[in-house]
Amino acid sequence: NGAEGGTIAAHPLSGFELKSVLRDSAREKTIFLHGQVTNVSQVPEDAVVILEKIPFQADAVFNLLKNEPKLKLQLKNDIYGVYHLSPPPELNEIKTTVICPATEKHIKKYLQQEIYLINETEEDYKAITLPFIETQSFSVQWVYNILEKKAESDRIVYENPDSVNGFVLIPDFKWNQKQVEDLYLIGICHQRGIRSLRDLTSDHLTLLKNIFQEGKEAILKRYGIHENKLRIYLHYQPSYYHLHVHFTALGHEAPGCSVERAHLLSDVIQNIESNPNYYQTRTLTYVLREDEVLLKKFRESGMC
Amino acid sequence: NGAEGGTIAAHPLSGFELKSVLRDSAREKTIFLHGQVTNVSQVPEDAVVILEKIPFQADAVFNLLKNEPKLKLQLKNDIYGVYHLSPPPELNEIKTTVICPATEKHIKKYLQQEIYLINETEEDYKAITLPFIETQSFSVQWVYNILEKKAESDRIVYENPDSVNGFVLIPDFKWNQKQVEDLYLIGICHQRGIRSLRDLTSDHLTLLKNIFQEGKEAILKRYGIHENKLRIYLHYQPSYYHLHVHFTALGHEAPGCSVERAHLLSDVIQNIESNPNYYQTRTLTYVLREDEVLLKKFRESGMC
Repeated sequence: NGAEGGTIAAHPLSGFELKSVLRDSAREKTIFLHGQVTNVSQVPEDAVVILEKIPFQADAVFNLLKNEPKLKLQLKNDIYGVYHLSPPPELNEIKTTVICPATEKHIKKYLQQEIYLINETEEDYKAITLPFIETQSFSVQWVYNILEKKAESDRIVYENPDSVNGFVLIPDFKWNQKQVEDLYLIGICHQRGIRSLRDLTSDHLTLLKNIFQEGKEAILKRYGIHENKLRIYLHYQPSYYHLHVHFTALGHEAPGCSVERAHLLSDVIQNIESNPNYYQTRTLTYVLREDEVLLKKFRESGMC
Repeated sequence: NGAEGGTIAAHPLSGFELKSVLRDSAREKTIFLHGQVTNVSQVPEDAVVILEKIPFQADAVFNLLKNEPKLKLQLKNDIYGVYHLSPPPELNEIKTTVICPATEKHIKKYLQQEIYLINETEEDYKAITLPFIETQSFSVQWVYNILEKKAESDRIVYENPDSVNGFVLIPDFKWNQKQVEDLYLIGICHQRGIRSLRDLTSDHLTLLKNIFQEGKEAILKRYGIHENKLRIYLHYQPSYYHLHVHFTALGHEAPGCSVERAHLLSDVIQNIESNPNYYQTRTLTYVLREDEVLLKKFRESGMC
């Protein structure tokens, strides 16, 4: 700050008023705020402010620790001690991003939707979820374009062309294919009408085993990644209702690989082998966001 | 620190010397160090030191921003500005965990390693995993200290004292209890000898349902967090072989909640209800690190 070209630059957060916390990631030590800033013209303007603690640097940490910093004891049990440490300012910068004036679109972009755990019984599926899927016009035209080679045919890594038990293996949009550390491919079945995990029975075991086995072989051949380095799973709910399987690098914490959304294909195959109607009869647990229509349907039915 | 019983307590990091950085997570603002501490007896002891920046708290952040904190401009482009902010000490604590004296196993636990997917059949469990668990002397003394109120008794959130079907609910070490966004509690069963998921049969349904139901109720009562905001699960492999259940905030991507390690307690209960020997007979998939003895055992058996 200071005099520049004759005018005094206003503080970027002058008169800051908090409107809401858009998102708060405890794991990543990052917080996203919506506020208003009042600049020199006295007109409040919307702003998005993102604060992120900076990562540690080993040298600075070592210098800190060797000088016996003040530690406040929180708990001690056997060989384990937990303390609070107040470090010097240079270890503690916060990266601060200010977007101002921010539009409605900026604000929505960073808004974390509330999320809720749903326990969907067999009856809930029939009464709420299935009618929702059937009345919504989810377009899977882009999937059919891939299967019919009308789009992305040059991206196909492997295909089993059988119309009942075959599939296409293709890199996911999220993966730039430049490094295998975040490898992400999708196996899309040729057969139409299998909406999700809920539709799978012993009729689909050959298809599932083909995707599992041939998908692993194709990835080894093309990318040199062995099956013991792959996480192979389905999502429930899926983001589109045409059966597909995710293949991701085991070391990559891909979004959607947590236990409340992902189902390992090896488990799915085992469960169907021991009970052909496992996925029709089981209560399945998943997460819905505040703005999802399906959550509204569950609420209207008084089920959550 | 200070005088206690006539002796002066040494600084927990007295004479700290850094041996190596075991892991450094820029995303999570956490660093894991291996060092040596020289205590009063002048014998250097191995220590693992974990530093983790604390998450933001919205109130404290708002107080900071409205008082026009000093911002150092890094870059400005159109409506986007990036600054460095040096906040006051109270926003900046570092949670410091010291494990001392640390064994080779502690040091290895935090060292970043290659990881491999294991498909453990019923036979593999009996021939490889179970003998491994039985011959290793994993100390769960700290667990018994909690159950017997010899340590951390003031931290207990809830207890069902029944020796067969009861448990203790306690905040996990990873959670500082200051904000519910990263809520993390552990339900530890009173009954001894239940090593893991593999031991669970219909004999344990009452215990499991107690943990599920009473754990949810206790968390609602103490923290105001409803069950549809909780992820409740077991790990397989667990990090210690005394049955325990993880309760984490649904919006918090806690480490170890991915599909290759976590098993939702609601699924576990359902699976045992439909097949009392589900977890004895099923092939279970999990991840092992390069340095784990169990991986070596699988390799020696030619199973991976």
